[in-house]
Amino acid sequence: MSDELLQAIRTIPDYPKKGILFRDITTLLGNARAFRRAVDALVQPWAGSKVDQIAGIEARGFILGGAVAHQLSAGFVPIRKKGKLPHETVRIAYSLEYGLDEMEMHKDAIRPGDQVILVDDLIATGGTAEAACRLLRNQGAEIVAACFIIDLPDLGGRKKLEALDVPVRTLVAFPGH
Amino acid sequence: MSDELLQAIRTIPDYPKKGILFRDITTLLGNARAFRRAVDALVQPWAGSKVDQIAGIEARGFILGGAVAHQLSAGFVPIRKKGKLPHETVRIAYSLEYGLDEMEMHKDAIRPGDQVILVDDLIATGGTAEAACRLLRNQGAEIVAACFIIDLPDLGGRKKLEALDVPVRTLVAFPGH
Repeated sequence: MSDELLQAIRTIPDYPKKGILFRDITTLLGNARAFRRAVDALVQPWAGSKVDQIAGIEARGFILGGAVAHQLSAGFVPIRKKGKLPHETVRIAYSLEYGLDEMEMHKDAIRPGDQVILVDDLIATGGTAEAACRLLRNQGAEIVAACFIIDLPDLGGRKKLEALDVPVRTLVAFPGH
Repeated sequence: MSDELLQAIRTIPDYPKKGILFRDITTLLGNARAFRRAVDALVQPWAGSKVDQIAGIEARGFILGGAVAHQLSAGFVPIRKKGKLPHETVRIAYSLEYGLDEMEMHKDAIRPGDQVILVDDLIATGGTAEAACRLLRNQGAEIVAACFIIDLPDLGGRKKLEALDVPVRTLVAFPGH
């Protein structure tokens, strides 16, 4: 399984800058069999459970999150860059490599007690995912898990989420990134 | 069916500017039953057909497109704003209300003869969807259909696509927008 997924991921050297190995998930998404397997494997532990909402992080998390929501017959909550959502929002700031940014979601997107799975394509330092978890919990979400296809374990994101008592599920890992 | 979907869509007056009634699909996405029904209804004519790729337009088209790809066991091709994709791309320019913008996809995302369904949340003037269809065809795609939850029929998008021999499927219409 993870061999098939590993092979479906393209590695692009020196992107977005020299020395970075970029793990490109578009080749996996475009491979119908690998995409389906990844979605099914990602949420297999929660098949048949009550999951209310899948929260996806803009933009690649929208693709996977939409598929996961369909697979689990759950709703979908977009977490977007600031200024993109049309109704009243709640925001949270998070650190980037240089400086701060903000993400937001609609204030009424989560009902207190909603069982929520967070989905994105990749976890690196975990800064974005951690902020998303805090944003969801601020609105009363119970975070069932955070799911990512790719883990870059040396960057510590998994530990950051586990320290918040968020179970983390990933399918393939690139040590040393 | 379309009543349930109509009621699940939120209308926000004067967004993004005065006089515009913005049709907000996030309330439909967050309603698990309506989201599932919309995805299933959208692609019902092609259930059981060979569809190779679902092309989704950034960003809301990613959510629906991911779900549709899962439903049809197809691959997914992201069509993104310029500068977001890591590998070699093909681009096309399209008109916005003021000026031009460009969208792109990976050059190797489509194999000649691929059966492709284009997905987005809404069709208005059709400028973005038309450019996406041209971009896909330039790479050899056979466009099975373009699917949108919402049609704003007075803005002429459907006719623009039909003039390109692209079958258009929509689920709810807001005449007069």
